[in-house]
Amino acid sequence: MGIVQSLDDDLLLPFPSFEEWPRHSHRHVRDCQPNIFGNATHETFPAHSSLHTTATSTTRYFVTKVVDSLENVKNGYGHYTVINNPLRTFSVVEPGGSNGCMEPRRRTVTQTSQTRTCHVALNAGFFDTRTGACLGNVVTDGQRVQDSGGIQNANFGIRKDGTIVVGYLSEQDVLREDNPFVQLVSGVIWLVRNATVYVNESRTTECADIQETGTLDRFVNVVSARTAVGHDEEGRVVLVHIEGQTGDRGVNLWEFADYLLSLGLVNAVNLDGGGSATMVINGTVVNYPSDRCADDRAFRCARAVSTILCVHDPDDVTSDCRVVSSYTCLNVTILGVILSWILQ
Amino acid sequence: MGIVQSLDDDLLLPFPSFEEWPRHSHRHVRDCQPNIFGNATHETFPAHSSLHTTATSTTRYFVTKVVDSLENVKNGYGHYTVINNPLRTFSVVEPGGSNGCMEPRRRTVTQTSQTRTCHVALNAGFFDTRTGACLGNVVTDGQRVQDSGGIQNANFGIRKDGTIVVGYLSEQDVLREDNPFVQLVSGVIWLVRNATVYVNESRTTECADIQETGTLDRFVNVVSARTAVGHDEEGRVVLVHIEGQTGDRGVNLWEFADYLLSLGLVNAVNLDGGGSATMVINGTVVNYPSDRCADDRAFRCARAVSTILCVHDPDDVTSDCRVVSSYTCLNVTILGVILSWILQ
Repeated sequence: MGIVQSLDDDLLLPFPSFEEWPRHSHRHVRDCQPNIFGNATHETFPAHSSLHTTATSTTRYFVTKVVDSLENVKNGYGHYTVINNPLRTFSVVEPGGSNGCMEPRRRTVTQTSQTRTCHVALNAGFFDTRTGACLGNVVTDGQRVQDSGGIQNANFGIRKDGTIVVGYLSEQDVLREDNPFVQLVSGVIWLVRNATVYVNESRTTECADIQETGTLDRFVNVVSARTAVGHDEEGRVVLVHIEGQTGDRGVNLWEFADYLLSLGLVNAVNLDGGGSATMVINGTVVNYPSDRCADDRAFRCARAVSTILCVHDPDDVTSDCRVVSSYTCLNVTILGVILSWILQ
Repeated sequence: MGIVQSLDDDLLLPFPSFEEWPRHSHRHVRDCQPNIFGNATHETFPAHSSLHTTATSTTRYFVTKVVDSLENVKNGYGHYTVINNPLRTFSVVEPGGSNGCMEPRRRTVTQTSQTRTCHVALNAGFFDTRTGACLGNVVTDGQRVQDSGGIQNANFGIRKDGTIVVGYLSEQDVLREDNPFVQLVSGVIWLVRNATVYVNESRTTECADIQETGTLDRFVNVVSARTAVGHDEEGRVVLVHIEGQTGDRGVNLWEFADYLLSLGLVNAVNLDGGGSATMVINGTVVNYPSDRCADDRAFRCARAVSTILCVHDPDDVTSDCRVVSSYTCLNVTILGVILSWILQ
């Protein structure tokens, strides 16, 4: 089947103009102060790495009752994916694979998921809908693609030593070379911090400017399709999305955070939503995109988006030393050298 | 991933007891009279068989506003699949493949779809939820599995000469040897006949018994997840499902029939719905099943069901003579004989 384009008509933008949004080497673009050298507020947690689990990940389908602030009950449709051993099975992937942010490209989640053979894929980072430029921090499989210059938005990342990092990062935090990020992506609004709803605090932190607060407030309060990444108390990475359409269906970020808490998430950040929200399992879109199709407005089409989160087969442990001790890694390297000598 | 069982808790049964529902060689089980030798009311239509189409089928995702009888507006989520060249690409498949009705088995749509490598699969025929027995007429790829003994329920089938047949069939109609059914499945309620809603007429036809009418009326009027098979004005086979949960979400059969009309269906019959409603694309469930999971009621699991409808790669034209004239078929056979002589 050919790819039918979406109309990009369910836009849900956190800030009034994406030209003013932080990008690589593009500081002071908003009145929200970037944090270059300071300590920014974030949480760390050891990633799950048990070798006793067999499944790479488990995806569950839910239809749940959500009670809104007016006590109205609505249906929340979505998917919940728990990822075991995320150090080996979880990656941030650029749109269409390598150099997707550099070009920049926009690709459907299905297209990008094929470049990394993802079992499960979810759209991730925000992007400039006009130019396609990736926004925020992006590190993919140990390669730093771009940093946001210390602009304070909610991040989700994993460092080389196996630590999950969730929250705000200074530019110095992002650029640390002694224990660099292996995976890193930026969202907008830190939804859940230490198993409590953190929407109010992050709303203030992520944009202190009064003129812009109105727009970020709308972003927080409007119902829409939503996606999030976080971790549970076992250090397993968790992906969640809920169906919606901006202003008509779905959940606001308060409701989303509450639901993530009920799922057992300890920390979680909000990713790109609205018509970008796309969930793909083994190459097939399993949610109902909210953008209409360019060829027929009666139907819905997945939007071409930016970065994705990808659950893949475990990377070979011996091919890099991320999940083994340096001692074991050394032994494996020595064994390889000896074998290559013998086989010569 | 292992298969997690559903609780079978969203049952939507058209008749009060499935033991009283028609099966093979099991006549007069309800007061609805079986039609053994007569002419039953049905429509015929030539199946689409253009060789100029490239795609086997196209699946569209929809979220549409549905207005109910009380003028309330609700969301109808679902998928709409149009199948080109159905004579070569569309099959009724027994649960778990061959002999699934004989055993009888129950399998998830995903499991059964793997036995025939289906691009798209939809649950189809009703079944006895206690014994798993297939109900109604079943013909799969030219093999007659069972006939319902002339009981009047809505059928969808394709005969060997390429004629789509929709509606009621006498036992004689089902057993005709001169132009046998190649695919045949029974639903309950003929939703759309000749591009008009036929729910009222079929409600009377399919069960005239007063005691049972109450239950069939509930089946027609309750909102639930629904599935249907039909054809459009080009003779392409069409599969549609809409999300729901019995008594809480989804559509009744009047609303479903209206929506099928808006999609351009000329004839359509209602298939098994409720927790049975399952839509699978390339092995992945793309709808939200309404049955809860046996291991965790917070989530939804696809039910193990009976027969499915399957869209697969085109069957080799020369391997059977279904879609070519008997003259061409003879020529191909003779060519094969000559070739095998030469190659000996």
